[in-house]
Amino acid sequence: MVPGYSIRRVEKQDYEGVLQALNALTTVGSVSKAQFEETVNHWNNVKVSSGPDLLQYHPYVILHGEEVAATGMMFIERKLIHECGLVGHIEDIAVSPHHQGKQLGRALIDHLTDLGLKHCYKVILDCDDSNVKFYEKCGYSRAGVEMQHR
Amino acid sequence: MVPGYSIRRVEKQDYEGVLQALNALTTVGSVSKAQFEETVNHWNNVKVSSGPDLLQYHPYVILHGEEVAATGMMFIERKLIHECGLVGHIEDIAVSPHHQGKQLGRALIDHLTDLGLKHCYKVILDCDDSNVKFYEKCGYSRAGVEMQHR
Repeated sequence: MVPGYSIRRVEKQDYEGVLQALNALTTVGSVSKAQFEETVNHWNNVKVSSGPDLLQYHPYVILHGEEVAATGMMFIERKLIHECGLVGHIEDIAVSPHHQGKQLGRALIDHLTDLGLKHCYKVILDCDDSNVKFYEKCGYSRAGVEMQHR
Repeated sequence: MVPGYSIRRVEKQDYEGVLQALNALTTVGSVSKAQFEETVNHWNNVKVSSGPDLLQYHPYVILHGEEVAATGMMFIERKLIHECGLVGHIEDIAVSPHHQGKQLGRALIDHLTDLGLKHCYKVILDCDDSNVKFYEKCGYSRAGVEMQHR
């Protein structure tokens, strides 16, 4: 981890910090403390299967003291292909404006990727063209095109 | 739906048909009947949240009589951004070689997309460059680059 910073799973007390960091990424809108806490509860309870005791959602924060400096999610999808293989999906990586330029994005991606590859045959993510070089430095390669329907 | 075909959620008796269809897409490897049934059970039980009674996994088959002609998955990811918004992910669309050329892929994508957009602010999928035109006909547009780490 970057000196002066630490990393751990998201906890209920991270309500304000996580939402502030996500606001640097996109529209968060109105999320109440109760909704946040229910979401954290859900993340802490859903397993990948009824078998091994592996959680599906892996939401993390990087902290500077008690302040949330960055946040990101890795969730695990369970497939039938590849012998009931697991795929990790990295989503919603956000670094607080006060903590940018300190390679926290890289540290978060490395952490979530290592965690994913412990359990999954691959970890994937979608990004803008402008971020491809960053993710190549993190060990990723182009795999396809993301399409969306709104 | 294409005349002569019907669509429904995957059930336990679809074991052989679903695996055969998926083999047209990629390596499935060894998946026992017990593993398949446990997976279907899991798909039938995991909810998107502790609140509304919405399932997370939506695995479908297109049938020709009792034969599986195509299969595909739409699963729902729960986010904090966009007011605890939901995103649908379409994965593992496969049409059996005996039933290709009948627009079953299109029918399946339309069904899963409609289902996703009932609940989600967007539905996304990753595809090869060669399939972009097909998905554009289904109402999708380019959103980004898929990156992978294996």
